[in-house]
Amino acid sequence: MIGARALIQTLVDSGVNTCFMNPGTSEMHFVHELDAVPQMRGVLALFEGVATGAADGYGRMTGRPAAALLHLGPGLGNGLANLHNARRAHTPVVAIVGAHATYHEHYDAPLQSDIEGVARNVSGWYRASAFPRDVGRDAAAAVAAALQPPGQVVTLVLPADVSWGEGAVPARPRALPPAQPVDDEAVEQAAAVLTSQEPALLLLGGAGTREPGSRAASRICAATGARMLGEVFPARQERGAGVPQLERLAYVAEAAEKQLQGIRHLVLAGARSPVSFFAYPGRPSDLVPDGASVHALADGTEDVTGTLEALADRVAPGTTPKLAELDPPAAPAGALDVNTLAAAVGATLPENAIVVDEAQTSSLGLPAATANAARHDWITETGGAIGQGLPAALGAAIAAPDRQVLCVQADGSAMYTHQALWTMARERADVTTILVSNDAYAILRFELQRVGAGPAGEAGPAARRMLDLSDPSINHTAIAQGFGVDAVRVSTADELVAALRRAYAEPGPHLIEATVPPLL
Amino acid sequence: MIGARALIQTLVDSGVNTCFMNPGTSEMHFVHELDAVPQMRGVLALFEGVATGAADGYGRMTGRPAAALLHLGPGLGNGLANLHNARRAHTPVVAIVGAHATYHEHYDAPLQSDIEGVARNVSGWYRASAFPRDVGRDAAAAVAAALQPPGQVVTLVLPADVSWGEGAVPARPRALPPAQPVDDEAVEQAAAVLTSQEPALLLLGGAGTREPGSRAASRICAATGARMLGEVFPARQERGAGVPQLERLAYVAEAAEKQLQGIRHLVLAGARSPVSFFAYPGRPSDLVPDGASVHALADGTEDVTGTLEALADRVAPGTTPKLAELDPPAAPAGALDVNTLAAAVGATLPENAIVVDEAQTSSLGLPAATANAARHDWITETGGAIGQGLPAALGAAIAAPDRQVLCVQADGSAMYTHQALWTMARERADVTTILVSNDAYAILRFELQRVGAGPAGEAGPAARRMLDLSDPSINHTAIAQGFGVDAVRVSTADELVAALRRAYAEPGPHLIEATVPPLL
Repeated sequence: MIGARALIQTLVDSGVNTCFMNPGTSEMHFVHELDAVPQMRGVLALFEGVATGAADGYGRMTGRPAAALLHLGPGLGNGLANLHNARRAHTPVVAIVGAHATYHEHYDAPLQSDIEGVARNVSGWYRASAFPRDVGRDAAAAVAAALQPPGQVVTLVLPADVSWGEGAVPARPRALPPAQPVDDEAVEQAAAVLTSQEPALLLLGGAGTREPGSRAASRICAATGARMLGEVFPARQERGAGVPQLERLAYVAEAAEKQLQGIRHLVLAGARSPVSFFAYPGRPSDLVPDGASVHALADGTEDVTGTLEALADRVAPGTTPKLAELDPPAAPAGALDVNTLAAAVGATLPENAIVVDEAQTSSLGLPAATANAARHDWITETGGAIGQGLPAALGAAIAAPDRQVLCVQADGSAMYTHQALWTMARERADVTTILVSNDAYAILRFELQRVGAGPAGEAGPAARRMLDLSDPSINHTAIAQGFGVDAVRVSTADELVAALRRAYAEPGPHLIEATVPPLL
Repeated sequence: MIGARALIQTLVDSGVNTCFMNPGTSEMHFVHELDAVPQMRGVLALFEGVATGAADGYGRMTGRPAAALLHLGPGLGNGLANLHNARRAHTPVVAIVGAHATYHEHYDAPLQSDIEGVARNVSGWYRASAFPRDVGRDAAAAVAAALQPPGQVVTLVLPADVSWGEGAVPARPRALPPAQPVDDEAVEQAAAVLTSQEPALLLLGGAGTREPGSRAASRICAATGARMLGEVFPARQERGAGVPQLERLAYVAEAAEKQLQGIRHLVLAGARSPVSFFAYPGRPSDLVPDGASVHALADGTEDVTGTLEALADRVAPGTTPKLAELDPPAAPAGALDVNTLAAAVGATLPENAIVVDEAQTSSLGLPAATANAARHDWITETGGAIGQGLPAALGAAIAAPDRQVLCVQADGSAMYTHQALWTMARERADVTTILVSNDAYAILRFELQRVGAGPAGEAGPAARRMLDLSDPSINHTAIAQGFGVDAVRVSTADELVAALRRAYAEPGPHLIEATVPPLL
């Protein structure tokens, strides 16, 4: 058996049955062997960042890694930004990077480069298979490493001669590590803090933003008077009707400081101690209020859910969580702005939808407008690497074909990886995209002022031109149609509501270009 | 003076007056200071791979670096593939990577990652400015390093607090290193080999594919009976009427072996000893024929042109070079295929055009059909990292606004960085793109067989689907129009000829979608 077949068979046996890919010459045996292992589904992307972002979205929804097949160093480079987001989300992803044959490396052919140096940027585990006989075991080890709590990106390099060479054997899946026991001492310490009557806040991240964690946290807060918040950019938050409401810590540090004001104790459950996303002159990077103490209840490598449940049983026996009612906003009419856009989303969101939010400044109204919408999942750009929305939506749709995916996507951010639209059309993925067009890098106009360079309106023409997308204005409807996706443009809130309802009712991908005035 | 202004001023003083950019929050002071140093032209790209590919095209045409401004590790990742091509082309490029404030790094905020590890993949020189007072000197050193013969990619990391901090001063440009003296001994050895009457071949690369080098080589060959070839993928080849014809070594190793068959002496002038682009089972990686000896006349760090001229004066005094006549093919009519496409290009190519060739399998007829066209430059994908054509064409047009740029662009390859079309529209760049659409990764169908996985036609449906772009077929005309570029679709050779003539006659970018049957 050749290496490529043993690799694919091992992946399938280990539970990895989807491979998002943009292959090249060195990956041709992998491609050829897809027919020999039909349990592996190959999903073609036109650009590597689509493949890696889709693997991230897929992993967040299934808890299992997808594979992403990339072509040498440049292909890995193209996929790096969304692997960065996956790293920050602790998504299990198996990146497979095809490489030159081992004996070809020292000729320094044009595509040769240091793959490992690039892979280490995002990978918690890295290995290059040296012989066909190794590749099965290496693949099983890669999957196990990807699933090491809380999950990580791993990179397996597949040299062409390992891929085509005979003598390979599939390996059995590795046993998963047992769940970490709950740390009773940490639970006791948190219980003491939370029942101390001093102002306390429970900050939830990782598994803590899923329903079981937020239910336990809600019980804890109801019984102790503590408050709870979710981390700024959760990998996956379960929310809406029937789930406890969990406001998130603000992206803007000034707003986050207000949320944290007066806190004496900050208890971390799956979340990291809060820091500013960027540095700003004269403002602190560390957002923990002066005098507050930080208590690590459970980090991502531990059993966050079990720990929260143990803590709830300790401090809130018999207390029930406070769940959000089903009370979506009324369908809006009239002019489109970030508020009516958000209301349109909340009014129409189908039961069990998956929302992928890369709307940047146009996202501001969304959390409130969907807090009492039908129950749904919310996926955010965990690592701040732009170009995550459309690929993650694609991956989520492949992961959960029975669910509707809504991608709320800013125009500037869409332009990094919009080739994902083509794969959505090809795979008939049920993704509805609202392409929010404001013809600007509106968030950068905002950040220009925040970093102390002055208001965007007072910047010179050269600087303003770098933050402007109106010359020429991009016709996102035409581009989506060019990729084979049904697309319409709407200019009022009622048109958006109608277009959303139609998109959810029809199979396959839809794009709705919604023009919204920029905030700045 | 703040760091950002000192940086930009130093770049301008050192001859770097164009910055292709895709900035983020940490680069806002750089953007703001563009108005303070109006000699610096900022060119906005929607995606980092466009910025780096444009910097590559610009540097190839001017011999001076452009800057490429990128946002932290993920932005550098997005730009990596085209920096890889620049590395292989020895193009001087100054990559400036904005980073978190130095004091913010240890908080490991979401966008934090190991920038250096990624940068080393492509950079011959790397530095992170530590204080505002350093950034001027660092920038001058970066430009000098980029211009170190034969030219290289350098990376300068600009932390946000260095960018916004006071106390910076612009630095004076560094003196360029003096030209290397010609190695008389190497010239004598080559002269002995070339006049030995044994079959000899002069392989030209780097500066050797520019007109002065090929003129000297042509004299040498005329006088000694040696043959000459250009490297497979030259960074920039001057060719057409009035320039010596220089056939290139073939990409396909089997064809290259035929070109090299019978050679006893291989003399390298700016070229590396030929190796196969990829490894193929049972075929050699090293393409030097058995028994042939390899002679390094001048490598890229040396004065390739001066060495060739010295050798010509030594072995061919009084001999004149053999120059191509102006004899373009007749304008073709009828069905479009790779041959009529090539004839249409050759028949219409304007004097002094710059041709950027990322046509992959559809490029096969182009060299012959343009060998006797009007004089022009030819730019190729030196590093094999797909997605170079449109960005390099943009950069070449910015570098040479008085010249016409023709980009012959394969459809699959276009999809990696086609956001370049928007910047072409914005900058009114005189780029005519022939988007050659065959709805397939045709080159991979070819490579599938070459690597021994069998003919593409006999592969299973899962494998064939990974090499097929017809479901859905991409409407490149609609996408280009969406980016604001004038676009038409042609289905015959005469329509292509008419569309090319119109595109050259009108200002600004044009895209012509030409449907051509795939070779396989």
